[in-house]
This record gives sequence, C-alpha cells and structure tokens, in this order.
Amino acid sequence: MNMKNRLSNTGEFGFIEKIKKITGTGPSVIKGIGDDCAVLRYKKNKHLLFAADMLVEGVHFTLKKAKPEAIGHKALAVNISDIAACGGIPRYAVISVGMPSVTSHNYAIRLYRGIKNLARCFKIDLVGGDTNFSRKLIISIAVLGEVSKRDLLLRSGAKNRDVIVLSGALREKPDHLMFMPKIKKSQLIVKSLMPSAMIDISDGFLSDLGHVLKDSGRGALIYESLIPCKDRKYSFNNLLNTGEQFELLFTMPANRLKMLPKGFYPVGEIRPNKEGITLVDSSGKKKRVKPKGYTHF
Amino acid sequence: MNMKNRLSNTGEFGFIEKIKKITGTGPSVIKGIGDDCAVLRYKKNKHLLFAADMLVEGVHFTLKKAKPEAIGHKALAVNISDIAACGGIPRYAVISVGMPSVTSHNYAIRLYRGIKNLARCFKIDLVGGDTNFSRKLIISIAVLGEVSKRDLLLRSGAKNRDVIVLSGALREKPDHLMFMPKIKKSQLIVKSLMPSAMIDISDGFLSDLGHVLKDSGRGALIYESLIPCKDRKYSFNNLLNTGEQFELLFTMPANRLKMLPKGFYPVGEIRPNKEGITLVDSSGKKKRVKPKGYTHF
Repeated sequence: MNMKNRLSNTGEFGFIEKIKKITGTGPSVIKGIGDDCAVLRYKKNKHLLFAADMLVEGVHFTLKKAKPEAIGHKALAVNISDIAACGGIPRYAVISVGMPSVTSHNYAIRLYRGIKNLARCFKIDLVGGDTNFSRKLIISIAVLGEVSKRDLLLRSGAKNRDVIVLSGALREKPDHLMFMPKIKKSQLIVKSLMPSAMIDISDGFLSDLGHVLKDSGRGALIYESLIPCKDRKYSFNNLLNTGEQFELLFTMPANRLKMLPKGFYPVGEIRPNKEGITLVDSSGKKKRVKPKGYTHF
Repeated sequence: MNMKNRLSNTGEFGFIEKIKKITGTGPSVIKGIGDDCAVLRYKKNKHLLFAADMLVEGVHFTLKKAKPEAIGHKALAVNISDIAACGGIPRYAVISVGMPSVTSHNYAIRLYRGIKNLARCFKIDLVGGDTNFSRKLIISIAVLGEVSKRDLLLRSGAKNRDVIVLSGALREKPDHLMFMPKIKKSQLIVKSLMPSAMIDISDGFLSDLGHVLKDSGRGALIYESLIPCKDRKYSFNNLLNTGEQFELLFTMPANRLKMLPKGFYPVGEIRPNKEGITLVDSSGKKKRVKPKGYTHF
C-alpha cells in the first residue's frame, strides 16, 4: 500500500471531494454532499433536511471519560447542530448502534436515555434504527428535518462586505459531549437577521470559516480582538483551530447589525476571494492564514 | 457485570422491546420503531419511509472474503430491502463510514463505487454522510423512501386464512453480499395482489414469519413441501433458519391467488394466534416450532 494514498495523508476533505465526483444527484436534490445537510424538495414552502453523523469509541469519545448518557447526547447533538446550520428544525432520527456483546443492559439503556432526553428537548421523534455487535462502541444517527424555503441557509451564500458573526463565545476546551445544539439561535438568525450563509463550528473557527469562503468563492478579514472567548487565559491559535464548539458562524448584511442581539459577536468581514483569510491583530498588523482545523484521518 | 444482563443473553429482539419503551412518537409518526421502516406523514397521498442499517467488519462481512464493492453494495442493499418490505420506493441515502486510517484511497473509492452502482440501479440519490477513523470498517446507511398510502405494508396486517407467500426460492447458503433488493417484486405485490402484511427475510424464514405473526396477533400453518429451495441438497432446518435471503414474505387473501405470477410460492396459511407456528411435513404430520433465526448479540 502506497503511503501517499492512505486516507490519513489526504484527510477527510480531500476524500469528500473525490466522493462528490462519483455521486450524482437528481432533480429533487437542491443540495447534495458538501454542506451540513442534504436539502431535498418536499412541499411548496418547505424543504427536507437530511444529515448523518457517526461517533466512534476511541476517536470521538472514550468510555473512561464519557458517561453513556453523554455519548448518546453527543451522537444526536452533532446531527441537530447540522440541521441548525441550515436554518431548519429537526423532526425525526434513526439510530444505529454497534456495541460489544459484553455491554450491560443498563449501559445500553443509559446510552439511549442520553439520546432520548435530548430528543425530547427538541421534540424529535426517535423512529428506528438497528443494533449490532461491534468490538468498539459506535453510534450512527441520521436526522430528518424541515426548513422553510426562505429560511434555508447554505455555506455558499456569503457576499462581499457581509459581516461575519459568531452566535456565541468560543472556548479553548469546549465541552465536546454535553453541548446544546443552537436551534433557537439559528431560528432567531434566519427569522430576523437576513443571513446569507451559515455553518456550525465543528471542525474549528478557521476551518469552518474556510468552508464558507470556499463554497461562496470569497475571502475574509477577521479581527482577532473581536473573537469572543469564555476562558480567561487561552492560546489564540488554539481557540481558532479547536473544533466541536458548535456555535454558529454566519454572514449577514452590515445594515442589519443593529438587529444583532446580545451574545452575538461580529468578528470580521467578507472580502474578495483573492484576499484569502487575513487576521488583523490588536496592533492592526495583518497576517494571511490557512485553515487547519480538525481532519478525521 | 452480571452475565444475565449482557446483551448477548437477551438478544436484539429483547433489547428492541426495551428501547421501544423509552422512545416516544409524535402525531406525524404512523409507525415508529419495530417495523422494517419508520413511516412518517408526508403528503396527501404519500408517506415517507425512513430506515437505517449498520454493517460491521467481522460481524456482517470479513475483508478477506468480501471485495470492497460487495461490502458497499450490501450496505445499501439491506436498506433498500427494508423499503421494499414496506411497499415503497427508495429515493435518497446518506452514508456514514468508519475506516482504518491505513485504508487506501483506492479501497475507499471501490467501496463507494459498490454503493453508487446499486444506487444507480434504483435511481437513489446519495446526498450526504460523513467519514471517520475507526479500527474496523463500519458502514452505516440511512435511506429515505416514499410509499403511496394505499401501498403501505406493515408486519401487522395479516388476517386469518390469508395465504403466506414467498417472493422467490430460498437458499441454504444465500449470497449475503451481492443480492438484489426486491423493489420490483414489492411493487408487483402491492399493485396487484392486495397483500395484508409484508417483511423481508433478513433474520430467517421462521424468525421473520414470527415477527409478522407477533405484530398481527396470529399463528400460521406452514407446509414444508411447499417451501421452495434453489439448492438440490439442503438441510430443511437450516433453510428455515438462515437469514439474509432478502426475498419477501407476505400475506394475501386466498381469492387473489390466481393473480400470483410465476416464481411466487404460497407456503402456508395464517391461523388464529393460539395455534402458534405449525409445520406440516410431507407425510401430513404436524409439529409446533418456535422461531430461532439470527439474533445480533
């Protein structure tokens, strides 16, 4: 096996690009692979949103550090966050679980309870799935949601001079298990802020900003002093590259900024593509950066 | 850990019963956990079907014996088979894959090609999913389909004196990888045979018949001599308990039997619940049996 052809070298994003080429989409697919959710034609005023995420023991969590309720919670939460990123409301979920055969009933029930409790918060119906034997614990959830046509947000809509906004402060070490997906904030954004593009920060601020910029064909100017952080002390570099924050990053017209509620933070501006991502530090010095962020291989 | 509380002792079906209790369903859920698909209110004349299945290396396939194309094929095929069992048409799929980091690009592409080729046969749009690192190869697919309200078939509709029919012959050792899901046969059944209940034979003839009988509150009389088999020599006991046949088992009124096409086999009759499952051998001798079939733990 050629080392250069291992997935661990190209990373997930390179691989997704390859996959895109061998997958096709029919006329009722508004957005296929490559955004937070797939967007499917549904009703006159509504689209379906379809998303899936898999959590793997030893990669996304460890049994020692995470309670089963928290693992279940996270497995559903990452999917809800994808629906939030598209401006939608989650409705249904199917859950596939792989568990070691020595798993106790009690452990399995606690895992499902973590999923169920979060589902209840968002009135999501858990409607199916399957259970399997697996050496490591695996949870794979697919969520179906709805979005009003006028609320639909993709990564691709950012326009020159739009303001880049964060829905909340970042953390250097966010709680990657028990976070709450930002459905309420997402609804506030789509209903009142005329946003042009949105994503949830799962890979890291710079990496996810990079996705928006790539899909929108734009660049960005980011003011370091405007990036909000809940921690007193932190490494700025870590803050911008730490994934699993699950706040929303979105773009909106500057003339709507007066509508921005407390707890939302403008952090920069959309620029022409050729400018790439430029960070401005507190002394006004500019620096071009490339997104790093989390890759899955 | 108490041995009695391990999942391997109760089996998947016992566990699913427990899970049902902690999951709830809202008003737009026509059928939640416990059938081949979830059935969701959608349009005036159509329901959505939502199904998910996970394949795990070493459990459902081995890398030595299965080509990556065949693994991808199977991962999608089991889901399509669930849609067929409910009388529907598959439309969209999302694919979550866990792969060792040493997986070659070529291998991963061949895996997706297996999925893609089958998707093309059924005009299914592959619209999303994610890729992860995992020590063992895991493929988890969720499929979204549609079913006309009048075509919807659940496990629960079998009526006394209905005929029990197989959509094709069984095999003692079926090809559990490259099988074709029975969407065409399913459409023929729902459009012309007035079926009352249906299931795909994934766990085994007796086990899946048992699911239909349990959900319908019925018993069955099965004539051994009518069970079709493609093999010249076989153990009858194995034949009835071997999973992954993926033919359809359905029930229909006897007065429609004249409509039954070639290649469909009536094998018995629905009886009152108290009669359980009774096998009649070629000499006319009756024997009560209990479903065994495949359990996942």
